[in-house]
Amino acid sequence: MQQRSYCGYSGRGGANSCSIYRGYLVRRTVHKCQNKEDISPVPVKVRLQDVLAEMSADDIERNLRNLTLKPHHASSSRNTELAHFIKDQWKGYGFEVKLIRYNVLLSFPEKGKINGASLQDGSGKVQYQTAKDEKVLEPSEESSDALPPFSAFSPTGKEKGDLIYVNYGRHDDFKLLLSKNVNCSGRIVIVRYGHVFRGDKVTNAQKFGAKAILIYNDPQDFAPVPDEDLYPHGWWLPRTGVQRGSILMGTGDPLTPRYPSKDGVLRKSSSEIKMPYIPAHPISAKDAEQFLRLLGGEKAPDDWQGGLDITYHLGPGFTGNYTDWKVEVETNNNHTRRDISNVIATLKGSVEPDRLVLLGNHRDAWVFGGIDPSSGTACLMEIAKALGTKYIQGWRPRRSIVLCSWGGEEYGLLGSTEWVEDNIHLLYQRAVAYLNVDSPIRGNYSLYVRASPLLHKVLFSASKQVKNPLDIDQSVYENWLDKFPASNGRTPKIPPLGSGSDYSPFCQRAGVPSADIRYVFDMRQFHNITSYPTYHSIHDTFAYVKKFVDPHFTTHLAIAQVWGSTAFLLAETPLLPINCSDYATALNKGVLDIERKYGSALAKNGISLEYLNKAVKEFEEGAESMQTLIEIPWSLSFINDRLTGLEKNFLNPEGLPGRPLYWHSIFAPSLHNSYASATFPGLHDALVDAVNNGAQNSTWVLVKEELSNTIVAIEWAAQFLNSNV
Amino acid sequence: MQQRSYCGYSGRGGANSCSIYRGYLVRRTVHKCQNKEDISPVPVKVRLQDVLAEMSADDIERNLRNLTLKPHHASSSRNTELAHFIKDQWKGYGFEVKLIRYNVLLSFPEKGKINGASLQDGSGKVQYQTAKDEKVLEPSEESSDALPPFSAFSPTGKEKGDLIYVNYGRHDDFKLLLSKNVNCSGRIVIVRYGHVFRGDKVTNAQKFGAKAILIYNDPQDFAPVPDEDLYPHGWWLPRTGVQRGSILMGTGDPLTPRYPSKDGVLRKSSSEIKMPYIPAHPISAKDAEQFLRLLGGEKAPDDWQGGLDITYHLGPGFTGNYTDWKVEVETNNNHTRRDISNVIATLKGSVEPDRLVLLGNHRDAWVFGGIDPSSGTACLMEIAKALGTKYIQGWRPRRSIVLCSWGGEEYGLLGSTEWVEDNIHLLYQRAVAYLNVDSPIRGNYSLYVRASPLLHKVLFSASKQVKNPLDIDQSVYENWLDKFPASNGRTPKIPPLGSGSDYSPFCQRAGVPSADIRYVFDMRQFHNITSYPTYHSIHDTFAYVKKFVDPHFTTHLAIAQVWGSTAFLLAETPLLPINCSDYATALNKGVLDIERKYGSALAKNGISLEYLNKAVKEFEEGAESMQTLIEIPWSLSFINDRLTGLEKNFLNPEGLPGRPLYWHSIFAPSLHNSYASATFPGLHDALVDAVNNGAQNSTWVLVKEELSNTIVAIEWAAQFLNSNV
Repeated sequence: MQQRSYCGYSGRGGANSCSIYRGYLVRRTVHKCQNKEDISPVPVKVRLQDVLAEMSADDIERNLRNLTLKPHHASSSRNTELAHFIKDQWKGYGFEVKLIRYNVLLSFPEKGKINGASLQDGSGKVQYQTAKDEKVLEPSEESSDALPPFSAFSPTGKEKGDLIYVNYGRHDDFKLLLSKNVNCSGRIVIVRYGHVFRGDKVTNAQKFGAKAILIYNDPQDFAPVPDEDLYPHGWWLPRTGVQRGSILMGTGDPLTPRYPSKDGVLRKSSSEIKMPYIPAHPISAKDAEQFLRLLGGEKAPDDWQGGLDITYHLGPGFTGNYTDWKVEVETNNNHTRRDISNVIATLKGSVEPDRLVLLGNHRDAWVFGGIDPSSGTACLMEIAKALGTKYIQGWRPRRSIVLCSWGGEEYGLLGSTEWVEDNIHLLYQRAVAYLNVDSPIRGNYSLYVRASPLLHKVLFSASKQVKNPLDIDQSVYENWLDKFPASNGRTPKIPPLGSGSDYSPFCQRAGVPSADIRYVFDMRQFHNITSYPTYHSIHDTFAYVKKFVDPHFTTHLAIAQVWGSTAFLLAETPLLPINCSDYATALNKGVLDIERKYGSALAKNGISLEYLNKAVKEFEEGAESMQTLIEIPWSLSFINDRLTGLEKNFLNPEGLPGRPLYWHSIFAPSLHNSYASATFPGLHDALVDAVNNGAQNSTWVLVKEELSNTIVAIEWAAQFLNSNV
Repeated sequence: MQQRSYCGYSGRGGANSCSIYRGYLVRRTVHKCQNKEDISPVPVKVRLQDVLAEMSADDIERNLRNLTLKPHHASSSRNTELAHFIKDQWKGYGFEVKLIRYNVLLSFPEKGKINGASLQDGSGKVQYQTAKDEKVLEPSEESSDALPPFSAFSPTGKEKGDLIYVNYGRHDDFKLLLSKNVNCSGRIVIVRYGHVFRGDKVTNAQKFGAKAILIYNDPQDFAPVPDEDLYPHGWWLPRTGVQRGSILMGTGDPLTPRYPSKDGVLRKSSSEIKMPYIPAHPISAKDAEQFLRLLGGEKAPDDWQGGLDITYHLGPGFTGNYTDWKVEVETNNNHTRRDISNVIATLKGSVEPDRLVLLGNHRDAWVFGGIDPSSGTACLMEIAKALGTKYIQGWRPRRSIVLCSWGGEEYGLLGSTEWVEDNIHLLYQRAVAYLNVDSPIRGNYSLYVRASPLLHKVLFSASKQVKNPLDIDQSVYENWLDKFPASNGRTPKIPPLGSGSDYSPFCQRAGVPSADIRYVFDMRQFHNITSYPTYHSIHDTFAYVKKFVDPHFTTHLAIAQVWGSTAFLLAETPLLPINCSDYATALNKGVLDIERKYGSALAKNGISLEYLNKAVKEFEEGAESMQTLIEIPWSLSFINDRLTGLEKNFLNPEGLPGRPLYWHSIFAPSLHNSYASATFPGLHDALVDAVNNGAQNSTWVLVKEELSNTIVAIEWAAQFLNSNV
């Protein structure tokens, strides 16, 4: 529906020429632009369905098998090898490809030293020691290159003491404990994975005074089924499985906040950077049970009871004959600077080569990366193949399409963040959209997308073009609408982005409308768990995907097609398929939420939302006037520049309170859970604190400040839409 | 030479229509854009000389007379009245005009209370009191609305003590005193105007412990001539004349740093803002002499001797019979929130309406504003008339032309800063250039321009189009080249911008290539003075301009024509007349300066400039590749977007050390003199401090940080020029 006819830009100049490429006769679609008659666009037309028809589930399967042959964590030789492999492939399809290195701080367990926890009796004798490695359950998991379970960026340390169970380690969990007079100060805490980012758990533990933290995969969250359904018999995490992961807060190389980690750029000294300072370590359910079953103290609340066959107690310390037993946590990790690599490939646009539609997925995996991330890379390679095939046949996209294979995502979005920091103004000025996937094939239940409101329209269009893998009489869109309807019931629901993957620097620093696309299992059936069971474990392999997740790779194909279609429509449609009113809807919803939750508290403190409402109203009018502009034929670039420039207006480089590199005023990760998202994050967080702290004047001053900043950001955007100046 | 033929954008759509406007038949130049044949630009063509021919010296004279009839300081009813008058005029020419108010903090002397200094004998009896007002010397200076001399934003206070003379009050002046064991701590200092911003003088005085400061106009700097040549007989400042002015550091409303001062935006509390905290007051040479002639202590150095007929001593305190006499400074000022108004007028572009060429000048004057600022406003109104005449005849510029009449400049660039803060993303994305004048007719010796390197080329072209007012056989350019040749001798010299007028927020916050245009007297003849004599005094009137500065208004006309030509070329030329290599030249010069001045100190501290040189080299290559791009016909928008987007890459919103709102990494006001400019300001300032502080490690760390930040900013720009991604 965006395919109306417009006078385009002038075509690209240069001489027509032909060359032989891999047996194809390639017409170079460059045109001499001598006069106004000669502005015909590129001659070889391609329909979206032609591109989609080039994609094959079998090829994606082959891609995934190859990508997951060996462990390939950040900076490993295998991950670099894959970077070169991908680079060569994409070059072959006609992309201009760069391999770009950044030298960043990583963290590894020290070889030959302990990373774990022990149970020690009164005499200090070790009675139980957690496993050093995860148990190998299939031959394909055998590898000397696998990183054992550890918490990346945990300091080296050894702490011994009484244990306390703190459920998911959320801020409210710690607060509930305090209300029961269970004080974590000077104790070791054990928490289960889930609900919030593991770095938040460690941060909370530090804040409440704990001296070490263990994090484990509780069966309720990762295997809520009988033992016979556990991997390798089913897709649920075995009792010996462990989730690795970084516990560093913030994104990007901690040595170069704000700047790219390349030669010539100064690194912070270790005293200047904020790193976790208590030993942290992840353990299996099997190991956790050895500690938890001995815990004394009050019985944990009902909703803190997990899936182990024990009654969970809070502690501190052990019960019965074990009161003088202690837990010791020992970590030995090295933080060390290493090179990571991004592969950046551009299929140059013929009409608007400086407008970029970016697709990205990380390449580094904690171990084999069956789902995380290689299911995405397998799809990205298939998109490259399909586009490349058409390119070789002479087609050129209108705008440039850029494929990104990120290194170092697992350590804190390093590859993407450093690259965004390296190209911050370029992306602000030229990027149309960034489309991310990360572990996109988690099930076959439904498509699930988080995105900027500006991308809702094109995501709906794209998903209508693709068949639902489980029911080919239905489109992906129809299934999605069925499974995740918005509250109005008319479209699928698209929540805003949180953090947790490579879209974050694009949103938060460059203001690029972004999306995160995935297929999910029915999480609501299972305690609302959000990770798939083998996430960050040694069992996330090709075999696992093939056997339990997507045997025929049809869901992979659907993701490749939805992802590719979205990019194709954004790159090809002369008038960008972006609807500003979708942002107005989101802003209105944000204001309503604030009014509903905090209206009376605000009124009590004499704070009016008058100007916030006024700003949203002005934005709404601007969005409507865009519709009018679009309806009268105008210069395309004039309208498209407004559409691509709009989201950038929400950036406030002062940043959010305490988070100077979160610049997006409308959507940002929630302060207490880095995975989730808040609307008007500054205002929202200030209100949470103000309401919690009651009448303290200073906190209400912060509310006023953040309200003011929110108003200004919305008005920046409103004025941008409404007029020239 | 930029007039090559290109395929343009598509024209604006809509129906053709006619209407009667002030007796003219106006063809609405809107075109239905139905197919690619129909992309003809606006029909009524206008040559630059046609526009220039519309301008008349007599009309400018009439404008100036009207603008300067009454005092019109910021927020005064007369200044608001002028805003409405200008608004109506510009509307009549076809501009879309807005009057935009901001509510900002201003400062006024309290009526009926003392603002001055007295000489008190040992018993505390006042033996001499400085004049409350400047002496009126011509009937036209008579006005009850004139603000008496005062230092805006000086606190209210009363301090009595010994006086010390500190020359110009520069940092080095205070340091020299210290080296002579003359300690300002707890004393009152008297300094002369000149060389640095008066706010710097107050800041230095505070830093060195002074408890009050007097600032006066020394005859050496403002009247280095016999008495019979002083105003009203000549153009030199009479002994009774005084320079008013703000002493606030930083720009924009101090209550809303970073944000626009409009409704809904939170104001800082007074405890949060940094204001001058010692009483400061300006006095006349006549008054200053009463204090200076009594000063004891060591004789001041030769280059501290001024133009009064006395021998200048340093103090502290008085000599001879006056050793127990003291000086008392008393100030009574109110800081108060008032509305100021900007007039913003847009002549909408027909092809690229969203690309803005901005011209600005402030409207508020300390008193009558003969030169400062109304000589500029008189020219701006003439430009509006000339463009409007052509507009009414059916011409439309290619890009939008925006005229800005700022309020509240004298209080710290308030009108422009608040407006830039109100439209920061819009300007970043859409502004092509900002062309400022402020007191542009200071003499008829030569054109003098400070500008971004990107505007050198167009400024040269524009000044070639205009006749030198004193010698019409010569162009303004030829005279300029003769009077201010660059070191290569091939072009006039264009130094970079400092601060001190409304271009500052455009450069420093929105990264808009900016220029400041003026005609100057031969300052080198007169002790290198930089202000014209009656600057900020009651004598800066229409009569003064007419009698002594530009009797026939031909220099005014030249400024209007150079300024208007620059804007016309930037608005009309399809391929923007911007040469990126001019920036490469400036960067190379900056590196050479650093190497020459600090090369050995850097080497001694193990700091290499390798990556700085590499970054500049990459930028240079990018600039050259732009030349190649320009030579092959490409989409115009593709090239123009690079040209308009380039300077923005130098913005680093982390800001300079201690100056969070100075974002431009390449040019910024010098830290010790807000009027002057430094290349690589962060690095430069850090080097000055490091070299002064010798081997202190911490200062060299700052050098490393700033070197790193400079490299990153240049590479942002280099990558932006060199490629898509």
